[in-house]
Amino acid sequence: MSFLCFGEIMLRLTPNDKHDKIFKSNMFQANYAGSESNVASSLALLGNQVQFVSKLPNNQLGDSAISSLQSYGVDTSSIIAGGNRIGTYFIELGSSIRPSKVLYDRTGSAISEIKENEFDWNILLKGKKWLFVSGITPALSKQCLLETIKIVKTAKTLGVKVSFDMNYRRTLWSSSKKARSCFDQILENTDLLFGNIGVLKDVYNMDFKGSDDIEKTIEAISLTKKQFGIAKLAFTCRNHLSASLNEISGVYLEGNGVLVSKRYTVNILDRFGTGDAFAAAFLHATEKKWDSQKRLEYAAAAFALKHT
Amino acid sequence: MSFLCFGEIMLRLTPNDKHDKIFKSNMFQANYAGSESNVASSLALLGNQVQFVSKLPNNQLGDSAISSLQSYGVDTSSIIAGGNRIGTYFIELGSSIRPSKVLYDRTGSAISEIKENEFDWNILLKGKKWLFVSGITPALSKQCLLETIKIVKTAKTLGVKVSFDMNYRRTLWSSSKKARSCFDQILENTDLLFGNIGVLKDVYNMDFKGSDDIEKTIEAISLTKKQFGIAKLAFTCRNHLSASLNEISGVYLEGNGVLVSKRYTVNILDRFGTGDAFAAAFLHATEKKWDSQKRLEYAAAAFALKHT
Amino acid sequence: MSFLCFGEIMLRLTPNDKHDKIFKSNMFQANYAGSESNVASSLALLGNQVQFVSKLPNNQLGDSAISSLQSYGVDTSSIIAGGNRIGTYFIELGSSIRPSKVLYDRTGSAISEIKENEFDWNILLKGKKWLFVSGITPALSKQCLLETIKIVKTAKTLGVKVSFDMNYRRTLWSSSKKARSCFDQILENTDLLFGNIGVLKDVYNMDFKGSDDIEKTIEAISLTKKQFGIAKLAFTCRNHLSASLNEISGVYLEGNGVLVSKRYTVNILDRFGTGDAFAAAFLHATEKKWDSQKRLEYAAAAFALKHT
Amino acid sequence: MSFLCFGEIMLRLTPNDKHDKIFKSNMFQANYAGSESNVASSLALLGNQVQFVSKLPNNQLGDSAISSLQSYGVDTSSIIAGGNRIGTYFIELGSSIRPSKVLYDRTGSAISEIKENEFDWNILLKGKKWLFVSGITPALSKQCLLETIKIVKTAKTLGVKVSFDMNYRRTLWSSSKKARSCFDQILENTDLLFGNIGVLKDVYNMDFKGSDDIEKTIEAISLTKKQFGIAKLAFTCRNHLSASLNEISGVYLEGNGVLVSKRYTVNILDRFGTGDAFAAAFLHATEKKWDSQKRLEYAAAAFALKHT
Amino acid sequence: MSFLCFGEIMLRLTPNDKHDKIFKSNMFQANYAGSESNVASSLALLGNQVQFVSKLPNNQLGDSAISSLQSYGVDTSSIIAGGNRIGTYFIELGSSIRPSKVLYDRTGSAISEIKENEFDWNILLKGKKWLFVSGITPALSKQCLLETIKIVKTAKTLGVKVSFDMNYRRTLWSSSKKARSCFDQILENTDLLFGNIGVLKDVYNMDFKGSDDIEKTIEAISLTKKQFGIAKLAFTCRNHLSASLNEISGVYLEGNGVLVSKRYTVNILDRFGTGDAFAAAFLHATEKKWDSQKRLEYAAAAFALKHT
Amino acid sequence: MSFLCFGEIMLRLTPNDKHDKIFKSNMFQANYAGSESNVASSLALLGNQVQFVSKLPNNQLGDSAISSLQSYGVDTSSIIAGGNRIGTYFIELGSSIRPSKVLYDRTGSAISEIKENEFDWNILLKGKKWLFVSGITPALSKQCLLETIKIVKTAKTLGVKVSFDMNYRRTLWSSSKKARSCFDQILENTDLLFGNIGVLKDVYNMDFKGSDDIEKTIEAISLTKKQFGIAKLAFTCRNHLSASLNEISGVYLEGNGVLVSKRYTVNILDRFGTGDAFAAAFLHATEKKWDSQKRLEYAAAAFALKHT
Ligand SMILES: Nc1ncnc2c1ncn2[C@@H]1O[C@H](COP(=O)(O)OP(=O)(O)O)[C@@H](O)[C@H]1O
Ligand SMILES: Nc1ncnc2c1ncn2[C@@H]1O[C@H](COP(=O)(O)OP(=O)(O)O)[C@@H](O)[C@H]1O
Ligand SMILES: Nc1ncnc2c1ncn2[C@@H]1O[C@H](COP(=O)(O)OP(=O)(O)O)[C@@H](O)[C@H]1O
Ligand SMILES: Nc1ncnc2c1ncn2[C@@H]1O[C@H](COP(=O)(O)OP(=O)(O)O)[C@@H](O)[C@H]1O
Ligand SMILES: Nc1ncnc2c1ncn2[C@@H]1O[C@H](COP(=O)(O)OP(=O)(O)O)[C@@H](O)[C@H]1O
Ligand SMILES: Nc1ncnc2c1ncn2[C@@H]1O[C@H](COP(=O)(O)OP(=O)(O)O)[C@@H](O)[C@H]1O
Repeated sequence: MSFLCFGEIMLRLTPNDKHDKIFKSNMFQANYAGSESNVASSLALLGNQVQFVSKLPNNQLGDSAISSLQSYGVDTSSIIAGGNRIGTYFIELGSSIRPSKVLYDRTGSAISEIKENEFDWNILLKGKKWLFVSGITPALSKQCLLETIKIVKTAKTLGVKVSFDMNYRRTLWSSSKKARSCFDQILENTDLLFGNIGVLKDVYNMDFKGSDDIEKTIEAISLTKKQFGIAKLAFTCRNHLSASLNEISGVYLEGNGVLVSKRYTVNILDRFGTGDAFAAAFLHATEKKWDSQKRLEYAAAAFALKHT
Repeated sequence: MSFLCFGEIMLRLTPNDKHDKIFKSNMFQANYAGSESNVASSLALLGNQVQFVSKLPNNQLGDSAISSLQSYGVDTSSIIAGGNRIGTYFIELGSSIRPSKVLYDRTGSAISEIKENEFDWNILLKGKKWLFVSGITPALSKQCLLETIKIVKTAKTLGVKVSFDMNYRRTLWSSSKKARSCFDQILENTDLLFGNIGVLKDVYNMDFKGSDDIEKTIEAISLTKKQFGIAKLAFTCRNHLSASLNEISGVYLEGNGVLVSKRYTVNILDRFGTGDAFAAAFLHATEKKWDSQKRLEYAAAAFALKHT
Repeated sequence: MSFLCFGEIMLRLTPNDKHDKIFKSNMFQANYAGSESNVASSLALLGNQVQFVSKLPNNQLGDSAISSLQSYGVDTSSIIAGGNRIGTYFIELGSSIRPSKVLYDRTGSAISEIKENEFDWNILLKGKKWLFVSGITPALSKQCLLETIKIVKTAKTLGVKVSFDMNYRRTLWSSSKKARSCFDQILENTDLLFGNIGVLKDVYNMDFKGSDDIEKTIEAISLTKKQFGIAKLAFTCRNHLSASLNEISGVYLEGNGVLVSKRYTVNILDRFGTGDAFAAAFLHATEKKWDSQKRLEYAAAAFALKHT
Repeated sequence: MSFLCFGEIMLRLTPNDKHDKIFKSNMFQANYAGSESNVASSLALLGNQVQFVSKLPNNQLGDSAISSLQSYGVDTSSIIAGGNRIGTYFIELGSSIRPSKVLYDRTGSAISEIKENEFDWNILLKGKKWLFVSGITPALSKQCLLETIKIVKTAKTLGVKVSFDMNYRRTLWSSSKKARSCFDQILENTDLLFGNIGVLKDVYNMDFKGSDDIEKTIEAISLTKKQFGIAKLAFTCRNHLSASLNEISGVYLEGNGVLVSKRYTVNILDRFGTGDAFAAAFLHATEKKWDSQKRLEYAAAAFALKHT
Repeated sequence: MSFLCFGEIMLRLTPNDKHDKIFKSNMFQANYAGSESNVASSLALLGNQVQFVSKLPNNQLGDSAISSLQSYGVDTSSIIAGGNRIGTYFIELGSSIRPSKVLYDRTGSAISEIKENEFDWNILLKGKKWLFVSGITPALSKQCLLETIKIVKTAKTLGVKVSFDMNYRRTLWSSSKKARSCFDQILENTDLLFGNIGVLKDVYNMDFKGSDDIEKTIEAISLTKKQFGIAKLAFTCRNHLSASLNEISGVYLEGNGVLVSKRYTVNILDRFGTGDAFAAAFLHATEKKWDSQKRLEYAAAAFALKHT
Repeated sequence: MSFLCFGEIMLRLTPNDKHDKIFKSNMFQANYAGSESNVASSLALLGNQVQFVSKLPNNQLGDSAISSLQSYGVDTSSIIAGGNRIGTYFIELGSSIRPSKVLYDRTGSAISEIKENEFDWNILLKGKKWLFVSGITPALSKQCLLETIKIVKTAKTLGVKVSFDMNYRRTLWSSSKKARSCFDQILENTDLLFGNIGVLKDVYNMDFKGSDDIEKTIEAISLTKKQFGIAKLAFTCRNHLSASLNEISGVYLEGNGVLVSKRYTVNILDRFGTGDAFAAAFLHATEKKWDSQKRLEYAAAAFALKHT
């Protein structure tokens, strides 16, 4: 088994008519998603062996989330059954000048109410090559924070490489300071970091002088490397021409040389999960031991395609 | 304004393909329902002035629930905005030998987390003729129980007549004893009671000897009248030929004479809300001052039609 | 009650697959719309007290139109029930170089067959602050024309301010001369006028020399102010880059100074009702007594968002 | 060309969710139907050469109705283009004890506004073997009545056999007397009559003593034969066990012997057009020169299958 | 791993409106099914370890079939990728007196074109407890027939128990004689046989004298046991009250005593896959080592529920 | 009868949610299309008399394909019933940087298995003015190739003008050499050729030096005229700004002068069938005897509109 991903998978409800608002919609498409589970599914679809660890309620919706993961080939045998409810969110897709909206209904979800020692990380991490976590999970509850740090440290101890997507969800943290103190502990154990300039600004109050998003990202990635001593960093960058038209690319730093990927101009259909596609593709390419530029181009292409 | 209804209105999600299971459905129809709000909507559709009082979150789903009530002509001006989430439930419609299933996701809903004195019942009940409450609301939280009893007593004091649908939701009460002690207090203030033999069995351990559902219901209604000293009682009765074929009717007791309605044989499409239709129609007919038999026949017909 | 809107609300049928033609569509989405009712619904959604006056047939479709208005919080208690049918229209949404198409089926609709004295404008206007009418209603029948002029004059007499959206529907008038003679009478009673250069060209044969749509609109708004002596005028302007890409803005004239709003570049999903959104937002902002620039920016933003 | 059918084809709108009411439906399935066009389509599907004559507006909906007829192989080359609108109707399918409902929106339809001499029946009937008309068309307008009688008489003169489905639509006639005087003139030219006891009761005040629907139908068919001197009569009969469960059969009278078909017990999904299926199948079987019993059984089977 | 199932999984296309005919449908629901894969999926859903072996084309549809199996938890790692196409079938659901129809489009499917030695049964069967095959697979091509017999014999040799569902698809065999000679070879290796009187009649020209379906099935099961020397036999039986109303039950013979299950009266929504549900449930119950009556009742209940 | 078109019409299945992949779609829209049948349908819709000749299986899908053609007014009376299956293809619509995908499932389709002398071209071509064939049909099987050449030659002999759309489907030919030798024989009998630079490159290895697509097309059309001695040639040209944004136009060569049409910038919704729309419109305009520039503009406009 190559990968272990830990996080929350939620019921996602989207108006069936993609242009409808939540307010007036009377028909919702249902699927199951979440940053870490998206990464797990993508990795499995690409042919990797992946285990997803989480907690889901013992009802039809929990079963359905598991079935969805299995359909991509993800190993779900270690997901704990229990808790009261599955986290839920509603999506309103933007268009042109109207941005997308997310309505979370996640308080009290199964994973947010886990207790100490529900997961035995030593056993779960055994035989894995990579751990993947994101900055979302520690924001869900105090125990989620403790477990995320614990799994990262255990991985380090066991020699499992740690990849971390430094996602920051403003509404889930009481303050950026809390996120910072958590991220600090994860970052010092991170082998491969995914991020972007936005999260560094939000969490670490960093600011960048570059004249465009690529320059700023190069600056950010170098600074981050220095500050936290991380071996490999892969960042996405984005220039908002409009809410539905973006220029995007990827930047990779390993050793000394910064690499920049091809630039894509994309009409955005659905921006959700694009960062996850980038991370999954990069991990896959790393596991394939492709050279650095190829890794980055592969991830950037996956990132771009996911917008369509 | 003739009616005040107090209770919870929830987001109801039903697989778009009515024969689908929740487990495999990826498309849900969304509407907004709840026993008390169903009664409110029906009364308004029939041309009555009705106010619905509740608490709903200040988000698109709460707004949508309000919009739904308004579409029927219900006055929503006193619904309190606040709380974290709207109660949600998923429905799986039965067919032939397979019964319907309900999956509740209601913990932490706005109404269940109301605080003391959020509602000023004296003001809200002023000028109303009827109050309608059900046995569901007091099961939602301790404060909900207190408010339900308080509103009933306030109504009594103000001369507003009290109608009570003695619904009993097993999964919402920790014990039938708790329900009993609550119902006792409501029943002693009830002017018009809706019920059926099932709830009397479940809550009061009553048993009936009649050879069929009608006989049993007549027995039950008389006993209930005697035991709680209620002026008017309207009960539904039901003979399960199969999960999708029932014989149904209504029984009414006022003064001495028990009245039995016409018997309907119905193919059941959707059993949810049928009791609510019975109550609403009976209240409407009462408000219209139709004679007793006409009231009952009208309510029984509404009850029957709602199954189709 | 702040607003009274008078006009027709129709059944709108749109192919469910938004890219389908009417010719090949076998599934239509149904909703209820019309310029004046759109304004009413938007105003109500924004929290204003609004009454909509019209005539609708006493059948399921008339009831459904009323229910739709109520869902937004519009007061429908003065809509007259009667007439044979509800006006109906079919929409074919354009895309790229293909323009949208409307197929009207409105002859003989309830409102077009109203008789003298069906509405008592003195009573209906009493206590209102604003009347809203459009140039569409007087085109529907001779009596509709008479009533529109009558309501405007009555408003003037009662001190209710008159807002008029100078919509011109070519296919509904036998000649632009007829429209002109009608609009003349409305304009002399108008306090707040909504319009654009197109309608001035069509109805008053005005032509403008400005080098772009904004310059032309500034010219048009000044001329119109002078010619009809109107206090406040809010116009939309539009530059067609393509059928699905427009640059749009708003222009406002009150006293001496012409104000121009921010410019929006919008990908057009559905152009219908955008002018209505502009008018409703402007009226709302006026009622809120925001300053002139804020009113215009608010209306222009609503106008832009409605295209998405 | 074997058959000429004359009548109206309408746009039929049915809630997409078959259990929805018109009132609450926001999605309608659209197709094109009408008693005479249903007969035409069925005959064409069975491999016969059929021409349908009518008048339809020159717009997308008129074109779509024509396209629908063509899809079955019906010749539409003589349909006149013109008039203002296509007749429209909305359907609410019943279930169990709730009956189906039809909401007509047909006033002013193209065919109801035909003028004298728009159709040249001599040319249209030339070379045809059979004419099919129903009792619906003459109810649509005065000219429709005149044309129906004229086409029937012209057919008689030209030696084209006349088949008549004695449909009676209560809401379309000002009095049953008017229908009677029209039907009298058609019946004296009819070679093959389709009907049932209901229409004889409604139009001719006939009453029957038989103890069940079959006996009554036998009585009715004999009486009708005698009274109007018709050579061949094929009636449907129906015993309503419930709104969704019927026992049905067919009865045929030619010469002296009355034939009764097999009896079918059907769960009714959609009752519309079942009489049309009976007529079309009977005409097809007649054209095939099958023996009388086979004709009847074939028509009864088509009648029964159409309910499902 | 407890179970190995071998057979074909196909793309199943069903009109989205369940009452539509294939001829007029322009929207099809797609899923993936087949007798043996249905058994595999059911067993996996019940918590068993199941491997499904087959051959599927290396395209999106083949991948989707695999994903569907995985969603239930079936192990698909030994499915061979190759061949030109996935077998496809179209379903028309019956109702009342109209039977269901299947339109196969399966010639040239991947599994029907397998070559000798594509599967190594010794390896695949290693460590399995049960093999499940049906009478359908050997009908698909000559090589499919050879492989089915080979896998059965290899299982016998390796001590893997053989369960066989004696399905007979008339249209797939050139003659019943061919089926007989194949079934003979499978039956002599069968440990647990699923069947019904229909297949024995069709393949072995057996006839039964019992006065109803249960008596006939008891006779059939005893005869089959005797004739082929099979240890355990579980048959379904069915009494057609109508196309949509059946009485059904199960019959089990092991050792001497014949057991008959509870009788169910079911309204049939969809008859496809009901036999598969019976087999899967029986296998599950066997694996659980429940007593014989419990096994039978469990399978009969699953059989009955699958009709709804 | 003006036109005869010969080719294959297939079942086209497209994910109902236009943005879905085939892999994850569980709902497909079904219609019937193919290059030659698209041309036939368009010509018939424009009012021309058109016959489509092909072979289709004698089942519901074959009937449905015929019904689809008839709905446009195409004469289907000479389509041969027979063969095993209808060719099928699945479409995945692209968007932004993601291209569209087609998954063919056409081996063994009815037309690909035709035998010698199934069609009598002398009879079929009698009285026609134009024959239309494409380069797709000869790629389907050896007999299809022979028939295409035969029909073209027979047309020439009978004085029926030959129009040829030089479509080249890479996946259907074993080598471009085969296509070349076939096309050579068709081209020497072609009166009106449709094509583009892509096919000349693919089939004839031609290369063009022009600095943009229009220049290249002018070069290509002149060369092709010279090389094959064709009287009239109408080519489409296309500049890919992105996968969803193209600049397109048409080029026409007759006698000496090359004509270039207006240039359209189109947002592409669905590129399939655009070349067919060009050909059909050009043929229609030719039949109408419009002048050359008008023909080309008409065809280019149809080409552009079909993208939306
Ligand atoms: N609370 C959460 N827990 C887990 N995943 C989440 C949560 N909220 C959103 N997501 C997921 O995060 C993804 C969007 O984020 P991200 O990758 O950061 O995008 P980007 O880099 O394009 O801004 C989506 O896939 C969404 O499903
Ligand atoms: N927790 C709840 N709060 C309010 N209403 C509820 C709740 N749970 C279910 N309901 C509503 O109760 C109704 C079903 O109940 P009931 O009238 O008791 O039926 P019956 O008498 O036919 O058994 C439905 O309308 C459903 O929407
Ligand atoms: N006959 C009519 N009566 C009332 N409203 C109409 C009528 N015809 C169209 N509408 C409405 O007019 C609106 C479109 O117009 P308008 O505001 O003038 O647009 P714009 O300013 O963008 O050109 C739509 O909301 C449509 O529903
Ligand atoms: N005004 C009309 N003109 C033509 N056809 C009509 C009209 N109204 C209803 N229909 C058609 O009549 C048919 C139903 O009638 P009918 O054959 O009399 O049924 P039944 O014999 O079962 O009572 C339907 O096909 C419907 O589409
Ligand atoms: N060629 C085939 N290969 C595999 N499975 C098939 C094939 N044809 C039909 N099926 C499956 O067979 C099942 C129906 O059969 P069966 O179990 O014999 O039913 P019953 O016992 O109720 O008559 C369905 O699940 C269908 O999907
Ligand atoms: N094998 C085939 N036989 C017939 N028509 C086909 C076949 N494959 C694709 N088509 C049709 O060809 C059309 C697309 O091609 P074409 O006109 O060449 O496009 P363009 O010129 O824009 O590149 C579509 O209408 C599609 O339905």
